[in-house]
Amino acid sequence: MATLGLIEYDTASEEVRAVYDDIMATRGTDWINNFWKALARDPAGLRRTWLSIKEIMANGALDALTKEMVYLAVSATNQCGYCIASHTAAARKAGMTDAMFSELMAVVGMANETNRLASGYRVEVDERFG
Amino acid sequence: MATLGLIEYDTASEEVRAVYDDIMATRGTDWINNFWKALARDPAGLRRTWLSIKEIMANGALDALTKEMVYLAVSATNQCGYCIASHTAAARKAGMTDAMFSELMAVVGMANETNRLASGYRVEVDERFG
Amino acid sequence: MATLGLIEYDTASEEVRAVYDDIMATRGTDWINNFWKALARDPAGLRRTWLSIKEIMANGALDALTKEMVYLAVSATNQCGYCIASHTAAARKAGMTDAMFSELMAVVGMANETNRLASGYRVEVDERFG
Amino acid sequence: MATLGLIEYDTASEEVRAVYDDIMATRGTDWINNFWKALARDPAGLRRTWLSIKEIMANGALDALTKEMVYLAVSATNQCGYCIASHTAAARKAGMTDAMFSELMAVVGMANETNRLASGYRVEVDERFG
Amino acid sequence: MATLGLIEYDTASEEVRAVYDDIMATRGTDWINNFWKALARDPAGLRRTWLSIKEIMANGALDALTKEMVYLAVSATNQCGYCIASHTAAARKAGMTDAMFSELMAVVGMANETNRLASGYRVEVDERFG
Amino acid sequence: MATLGLIEYDTASEEVRAVYDDIMATRGTDWINNFWKALARDPAGLRRTWLSIKEIMANGALDALTKEMVYLAVSATNQCGYCIASHTAAARKAGMTDAMFSELMAVVGMANETNRLASGYRVEVDERFG
Repeated sequence: MATLGLIEYDTASEEVRAVYDDIMATRGTDWINNFWKALARDPAGLRRTWLSIKEIMANGALDALTKEMVYLAVSATNQCGYCIASHTAAARKAGMTDAMFSELMAVVGMANETNRLASGYRVEVDERFG
Repeated sequence: MATLGLIEYDTASEEVRAVYDDIMATRGTDWINNFWKALARDPAGLRRTWLSIKEIMANGALDALTKEMVYLAVSATNQCGYCIASHTAAARKAGMTDAMFSELMAVVGMANETNRLASGYRVEVDERFG
Repeated sequence: MATLGLIEYDTASEEVRAVYDDIMATRGTDWINNFWKALARDPAGLRRTWLSIKEIMANGALDALTKEMVYLAVSATNQCGYCIASHTAAARKAGMTDAMFSELMAVVGMANETNRLASGYRVEVDERFG
Repeated sequence: MATLGLIEYDTASEEVRAVYDDIMATRGTDWINNFWKALARDPAGLRRTWLSIKEIMANGALDALTKEMVYLAVSATNQCGYCIASHTAAARKAGMTDAMFSELMAVVGMANETNRLASGYRVEVDERFG
Repeated sequence: MATLGLIEYDTASEEVRAVYDDIMATRGTDWINNFWKALARDPAGLRRTWLSIKEIMANGALDALTKEMVYLAVSATNQCGYCIASHTAAARKAGMTDAMFSELMAVVGMANETNRLASGYRVEVDERFG
Repeated sequence: MATLGLIEYDTASEEVRAVYDDIMATRGTDWINNFWKALARDPAGLRRTWLSIKEIMANGALDALTKEMVYLAVSATNQCGYCIASHTAAARKAGMTDAMFSELMAVVGMANETNRLASGYRVEVDERFG
């Protein structure tokens, strides 16, 4: 059970509802996932976190699909169960196919492997890498 | 200093040289970065790691630039200094601009933040996420 | 199921019971949580770990509440499910309110974000930080 | 060297200077540490990150010293060199003594130890922890 | 549920079956654990990962039991639930006793503790360590 | 520079010297590495940490060499520079050869790879693993 419980739309304060409404409008959905309902116990934190994510995940120099796959890559690296589940769904919605998911995981696995090899062998940074 | 030292091309065995040659040919460069020179103390490990990376990082369902940025995202999450330096260089070579780098870091930072919020609040996985 | 199973008080050896008794007396409770029952398979490890925790978590230059919140912050960062659950309970018992929990999580999330930004941007340590 | 270099006050845009001014005013200092100068390559990210930190680190249900020590605890857990250096300095400025630092590290170390024991032994969450 | 589902032997392609057969022959078992069934959605990844593991985990300068315990130590450090469960089973099959498991966890816990103390205190590497 | 500085033998208190003497006697060396000199600012923490390490790293169900390699595996996974350097030295002293080091790193790298694959694919624990 979420530590402070979940705040449903019906019982939410106006401040929280405004964020929920913006989440649904931005995402073109009619529901709110549990992450936001858990954060809603801290309305200022809810608003701040949502506004940051909205700004960061919008199309920009990187498209939304790439950003969602990067998010998923970090979540798999951190082994955060909730985050892997929610961002796999988000990345699929943004266009990730099964083949893309498999290749993404292959890169994530390989990066986690070589990160430890580089550290374990105590490799010096090459001069060319500045 | 790298724990087992670095193996330079000139003093490398034929087996190691064959891998070095393939690295340079695949990347279109005329030098080998320290990671491979450190791994070369274990020729079987050098070959195995290189062949895996070559297969995984080739264009496929994901393009090479996306893969390099995912690699960099994982390396920043793990805070592996060598890996951040080398994959920043590789991602730039594959086309990453300064603006893309900044957006990438913003996503990485945000993912690391919300991963801990999801875990800390003990959020249940939504049924819709399967 | 815990890998080596749990050792209940009734079937515990005298050595293990002595630790269990000290845990309950120190905490002013009449039960033992599963962590200790799992560790009890290794009586020397149980004793060593308990004595270390008892010494470390006692009031000192930092009060017990601050220490419990730091423990929870580390557990959320590591995404250890058991540890988050048990130390949320412990911190509440020591006086953590809902508002304090929310602020704590906000700091934990932010620290995890900026840790990756500092590493990803490869920021040099300022001279003033020594 | 920071990947995108550091932006000094003298050569900063008006947008960046406004953030720098707010950082110095909020902290009562006359200098900007490298983290912000590195982020300044992404003015929107600089502003967003600073406003979040300013809001999160202000006195609230938790005092500023507790928050800085939590930040340091997370940074030590993540082993982020820059972050440990800068938040040790910040925590000291907020009142952390040498004895408090040592106790903080002891809690951080112990939490990282028991987090792995709980996971490694596969301990079930106690019903009482909800 | 595994994101892409599990591929059972009966419905597997010939390419996947060849890997499954080699896994069972190498391990002297008549079943395939879920990890491989999940990876099988990416036949090239399945083959590559299995061949790497087979080569790495074979007896060599280190015996198979030591390797399995190292694998478990890393999995406990990363707090990967699936990996802890499967490699505890693998290590037991290779000869790990309850007493060895407990000692292994003690070392893992201690290493995670002192890793953070070394980083948190910002200890310089001794010259003698090169 | 270590945050609280290093305490040398000559200027150490009797309590700290007693620990230093025990470290040197147990290890059969005539010097103290920086980790202990940094911890010595907290004499109780120094004593507690040393006694725990001494107890945990002694020969038992696992021999000292295996324990040192596990310690190194965890340190490489955590990417703790100091810890990798010091425990590589300790493992060598306990008998680790270059070939053993390379195989150890291969296992560490592979475990870090598959940990993320297991999490990323969201693989369910097999019933047989209990």
